[in-house]
Amino acid sequence: MVKSMTKDALLSAFAGESMAHMRYLVFADIAEKEGYSNVARLFRAIAYAEQVHATNHYNVLRVFNEDAKISSGAPIGPGDTSKNLDLAYRGEVYEIEEMYPVYLEIAKYQDEKEAQRSFYFALSAEKIHAQLYKTAKEYVDKKQDFPLAPDEKVWICPVCGHTHVGKEPPEKCPVCGAPRGMYKGF
Amino acid sequence: MVKSMTKDALLSAFAGESMAHMRYLVFADIAEKEGYSNVARLFRAIAYAEQVHATNHYNVLRVFNEDAKISSGAPIGPGDTSKNLDLAYRGEVYEIEEMYPVYLEIAKYQDEKEAQRSFYFALSAEKIHAQLYKTAKEYVDKKQDFPLAPDEKVWICPVCGHTHVGKEPPEKCPVCGAPRGMYKGF
Ligand SMILES: [Fe+2]
Ligand SMILES: [Fe+2]
Ligand SMILES: [Fe+2]
Ligand SMILES: [Fe+2]
Ligand SMILES: [Fe+2]
Ligand SMILES: [Fe+2]
Repeated sequence: MVKSMTKDALLSAFAGESMAHMRYLVFADIAEKEGYSNVARLFRAIAYAEQVHATNHYNVLRVFNEDAKISSGAPIGPGDTSKNLDLAYRGEVYEIEEMYPVYLEIAKYQDEKEAQRSFYFALSAEKIHAQLYKTAKEYVDKKQDFPLAPDEKVWICPVCGHTHVGKEPPEKCPVCGAPRGMYKGF
Repeated sequence: MVKSMTKDALLSAFAGESMAHMRYLVFADIAEKEGYSNVARLFRAIAYAEQVHATNHYNVLRVFNEDAKISSGAPIGPGDTSKNLDLAYRGEVYEIEEMYPVYLEIAKYQDEKEAQRSFYFALSAEKIHAQLYKTAKEYVDKKQDFPLAPDEKVWICPVCGHTHVGKEPPEKCPVCGAPRGMYKGF
């Protein structure tokens, strides 16, 4: 059984990741309609990375079964793709600078190894997400799509959500060690 | 601008639907591993219906952009497929008996037409979801998969989340009127 404070952190992180996943799917459709098809791919890929994080947090809670009232912060309100990228960026920065560092401290203090691993995986990926959204916004603000060559993809590690843009995924995931063949391309 | 209490209801419903979507994706993978491939299809189809609901609620919030602390109830804790179906059923019943009827009253009292529509669409689909999960659990408790003939699918209306099991979707959606061709099959 996960200790109570770590459990609350996992629940809140599950809620936050589930909502981020959903927002990015909404934003992908908007980007598609505005003609930014690579930004749409980026949103869909990162939505999948957030699904990996949500699933990891949820699975750490496995032995726990009750109704929970969950509270999680989220920037809300879709707009055009430039605004959505800003909102996505701010969400990632909140996770990098506040949420996951604090949750990681809680899990360390309470010696909850599985929760630490799940928070560490997420924190590592969110740093990349923030950079990608920042870059994409710079292009969109010049009315250009996010640059992806025809043979390039956005690659997501299905174990930890590590996110990589390029022709191929890394030989093994730099965060969790999963082999290249496991990555999912968008 | 959506009035404040209706806005809170939309935010909470967005959080609840996002988490339901995510739980059902987790449950689908577990069902697949246990050999219940039709239950997995049911979970994936209904996960998509919850995505439709979350997207509808989110889009009603369009003009609103701020950081929100969101609170939503959710039964948490994955187990085996029988337990997951029970948990999914209980979540749907909560939405049918308490959450959406209350949110619909709030939106009616505040004369928020778009929110009413979004809550009504969700409420209508959740009633079907509860029945489907109940039926699926009865089969799984006899170690049988949810029955789907080779030419049958679980059909989801992408406008309102209406859910239909059969060879074909209805000629038009009984809830929102969308034509047959729009349904997505799982
Ligand atoms: Fe994440
Ligand atoms: Fe992220
Ligand atoms: Fe990884
Ligand atoms: Fe729903
Ligand atoms: Fe439902
Ligand atoms: Fe419909």
